[in-house]
Amino acid sequence: MQKVFSSRRDFLRTAGLGIAYTMVPQFLTCSKSIRKEKLPNIIIIFCDDLGYGDLGIYGHPTIKTPNLDRMALEGQKWTNFYVAASVCTPSRAGILTGRLPIRSGMCSSKRRVLFPDSAGGLPESEITLAEVLKTKGYKTACIGKWHLGHLPRYLPTKNGFDYYFGIPYSNDMDDVSKLPWKQKFWNPKTEYWNVPLMQNEKVIERPAEQTSLTKRYTDETIKFIKNNKNNPFFIYLAHTMPHVPLFASKNFQNRSLRGLYGDVVEEIDWNVGRILRTLNDLKLSSNTLVIFTSDNGPWWLTYKELGGSAGLLRGGKGSTWEGGMREPAIFWWPGHIKKGTITDIGSTMDIFTTICKLTGAKIPDDRIIDGVDLRPVLFGTGPSPRKTIFYYRGTKLYAVRKGSYKAHFFTEPGYGKNRKVKKHNPPLLFNLEQDPSERFDISKEHPEIIADILETVKKHKAKLVIGENQLEKIIKK
Amino acid sequence: MQKVFSSRRDFLRTAGLGIAYTMVPQFLTCSKSIRKEKLPNIIIIFCDDLGYGDLGIYGHPTIKTPNLDRMALEGQKWTNFYVAASVCTPSRAGILTGRLPIRSGMCSSKRRVLFPDSAGGLPESEITLAEVLKTKGYKTACIGKWHLGHLPRYLPTKNGFDYYFGIPYSNDMDDVSKLPWKQKFWNPKTEYWNVPLMQNEKVIERPAEQTSLTKRYTDETIKFIKNNKNNPFFIYLAHTMPHVPLFASKNFQNRSLRGLYGDVVEEIDWNVGRILRTLNDLKLSSNTLVIFTSDNGPWWLTYKELGGSAGLLRGGKGSTWEGGMREPAIFWWPGHIKKGTITDIGSTMDIFTTICKLTGAKIPDDRIIDGVDLRPVLFGTGPSPRKTIFYYRGTKLYAVRKGSYKAHFFTEPGYGKNRKVKKHNPPLLFNLEQDPSERFDISKEHPEIIADILETVKKHKAKLVIGENQLEKIIKK
Repeated sequence: MQKVFSSRRDFLRTAGLGIAYTMVPQFLTCSKSIRKEKLPNIIIIFCDDLGYGDLGIYGHPTIKTPNLDRMALEGQKWTNFYVAASVCTPSRAGILTGRLPIRSGMCSSKRRVLFPDSAGGLPESEITLAEVLKTKGYKTACIGKWHLGHLPRYLPTKNGFDYYFGIPYSNDMDDVSKLPWKQKFWNPKTEYWNVPLMQNEKVIERPAEQTSLTKRYTDETIKFIKNNKNNPFFIYLAHTMPHVPLFASKNFQNRSLRGLYGDVVEEIDWNVGRILRTLNDLKLSSNTLVIFTSDNGPWWLTYKELGGSAGLLRGGKGSTWEGGMREPAIFWWPGHIKKGTITDIGSTMDIFTTICKLTGAKIPDDRIIDGVDLRPVLFGTGPSPRKTIFYYRGTKLYAVRKGSYKAHFFTEPGYGKNRKVKKHNPPLLFNLEQDPSERFDISKEHPEIIADILETVKKHKAKLVIGENQLEKIIKK
Repeated sequence: MQKVFSSRRDFLRTAGLGIAYTMVPQFLTCSKSIRKEKLPNIIIIFCDDLGYGDLGIYGHPTIKTPNLDRMALEGQKWTNFYVAASVCTPSRAGILTGRLPIRSGMCSSKRRVLFPDSAGGLPESEITLAEVLKTKGYKTACIGKWHLGHLPRYLPTKNGFDYYFGIPYSNDMDDVSKLPWKQKFWNPKTEYWNVPLMQNEKVIERPAEQTSLTKRYTDETIKFIKNNKNNPFFIYLAHTMPHVPLFASKNFQNRSLRGLYGDVVEEIDWNVGRILRTLNDLKLSSNTLVIFTSDNGPWWLTYKELGGSAGLLRGGKGSTWEGGMREPAIFWWPGHIKKGTITDIGSTMDIFTTICKLTGAKIPDDRIIDGVDLRPVLFGTGPSPRKTIFYYRGTKLYAVRKGSYKAHFFTEPGYGKNRKVKKHNPPLLFNLEQDPSERFDISKEHPEIIADILETVKKHKAKLVIGENQLEKIIKK
């Protein structure tokens, strides 16, 4: 059984907060390429509701993403990379803590994400990537959508980030328009949603002027890079887009053949290009790891053309089909990462562990960390240690991937009225490497694989401590 | 009304067969880049049943195609490129004549392709790309699957090709095994199909040893390139793979994560690399246009994991959904073609017209040619002149794309027992640029677009002369 911390301060004290740069050498990574070098800067660019198939290099026919395509060609394009959950809040808890959201209580089957009336947030006992990087002397910024609790005690500045600039929850919340659903989203205006834009702990604009958010987030990112070019820095840039309502700035409106959704993705692409150019111009690219991915699959099930595409993958946002949880993922670190397409399995939770290893930061050892160390894949020295993906929907385990095989115990559409949970006994079984679209159930042919997956589930559940549910807590009026 | 030729010899005489190289200068292309240069060599690599989503650069997660990916990055990757029909025989008639197969009689709604008992073939009055290139002094080879008539009078050597090496029809014909359907295809052995391998007009091997076909076709291609490096040459390399039964050579068996289908595609990829390397080694690459595409969509509807993937496109082989007729298409001609992703519309039939224009060969003017000149797109000087795609199933027009919009008058699964034709009135309407997966019918919102498409259909049908059906002719026993 894991110990449960009452406060993460205990860990951070042990890990040497305030004694950064004095860590003993064995804490440093074994990777030859960065040993004795400066600590690498880290930038995570995390989109919102971007689909597996929405980038040129991932096969979209009409969305043009030349900057991301180039980033992928200069780095690693992962094709089996997963998020921790198929909706915003739990997915974000996963990437920032390296832990399945069920452990932190950041998922629920009823209220699947936090809302403006939510009273909960990421528990203080959880340790974020920003916090572990602070122990190594990093300057840290969270720029963009947070969605891990908007009450003062849950804000990014209380979670290891020196700086915050962004919106505290989704851009479709605080709906103040009286317009019909269709008109509102198909012809959106920024004033329909009274979403606050915050800087550190203050609201600086309300409603947030959404058409300029992608650009402004990038401006803030570039400013933070420039101001900290002599420090190691960590920037978590969590774009608000392409989550509905979709907003592009004037230069990008009506530009893409794909329509508004394409405009928005092409604006993100262009702004990723600005960041990479800044790193090159400042001669920081050889010392900066940039990771691009998204929080969950595309929302086409509800928003049709306004939602993205999961490409050849089945389903989308909210579901435990591949389209809900497999994402584009690009790792870029010129001169360090072995270029190529990576078919190994990875997870956003592994970013936590890998970065700890890369920087020599201590990985919390008093709790289960689900992330694994992806350095062998990044540096081309070995396979991914990750073999298993748990697909939770809320607090219920719907499916498990082990190696090439995925068993579905339950399936349910991501969104939609009158949807029903289907229980599968025996579970559906797909070979994802051969059948990535999850079309051909092979459960009858392979009972032994199902038995093995069930054994894995049993072991997983035996050690599972479910965190106190944060998503059902409502502000009392 | 078009004139109907009794023999193509009339045209070929007019076009100057035998007086190649003496054509007056105005026949030469206007493209600055090749004016005054030697006539370019042409290689068309035409796969069989490859899906839109089956290459790395088109988004497949587990099939690795580094050679084709590089070819696309060095050239043009087309994302809206169509074939003339969703099954073998009519699609091949389309690419080689630049004409819709309904004009040549090479399609039928009953027998959709030619079979070993077929008595028909490409009518002598049709003019193939090989024949027009002969008028310009090209050396021509057809290497691979023909499928435009296997009786002596219909063979490639009677259709403008100096050399033929390949199988005359599909590799799943001449079935001589007594094995159950599933076992036969899932564990194929080359002797189950008594398909002949021909050289020119002789059978040189029967059954064709299929595991080595991809390699042997490539060997023949390289030999032909080497033997003709001082001539302009045209090679139509029509791979037998990845049509079921799937066969890979020993070096490629059990290599791909995608299974046997992936092995087969990865072997094609590797062999494309051999051809491009040969062109580079012989310093022919700057004078050789190589086009890579396939004849129709993937056959997953019948063969499951043994069929490919249409990626984000709906349907597959045999259907008039996008997955049946939109294909990967790569144009490669270093130093000449403007690199990039092309979202303009193109068709295999345009290859005929474009190559005529590039080489100064006379385009037959006594009949309707459906191909358009894609040189503006290749050289980056303007948009594609192609705005319309007619999706025939057999002799019936099922759908029409005009610009971004596609109207379906009929839909039907490509294959499968008890399938039914659905008639749509009003037709289904999709915006393919915004909705490439054909999910969101917008017919109610846009009656004016449907009216415009119907007008286009009316004009098309007014000029249509249906060729004598070649596919229903059976050899009398």
